[in-house]
Amino acid sequence: MPISSEKDAIKSFGNKVRLIRKERKLSMEMLANIAEIELSQIYRIETGKINPKLTTILKIAEALEINPKELF
Amino acid sequence: MPISSEKDAIKSFGNKVRLIRKERKLSMEMLANIAEIELSQIYRIETGKINPKLTTILKIAEALEINPKELF
Repeated sequence: MPISSEKDAIKSFGNKVRLIRKERKLSMEMLANIAEIELSQIYRIETGKINPKLTTILKIAEALEINPKELF
Repeated sequence: MPISSEKDAIKSFGNKVRLIRKERKLSMEMLANIAEIELSQIYRIETGKINPKLTTILKIAEALEINPKELF
């Protein structure tokens, strides 16, 4: 997977988190609290700035009350 | 997500990678080459020793020729 498409994949993942969070009418702060993840980290994930780990992905899915599959 | 279940989640992810790899009749070396990931990293992922990042998960799915959803 070329670097450019890695960046795209990270961005698209972040967009999906944001989309589903908004569908659930959650603010970033609320998601951060529920998932027990720093607000700044949620922000950087949603804006495609960081490459989240498996457990962070699972925490976000759990907090959004979705199957992690839906984030892919 | 408590620490213990984080470890379980990482282990279960690794088991899934191994299961699908074997279904595809790929050795760890072959998967490492195709995914362009170090063999040692594939081994540690499959044995639940490390918490892989999003792009590593996507590279593994691409190499296994599956939708990343199938790893969750």
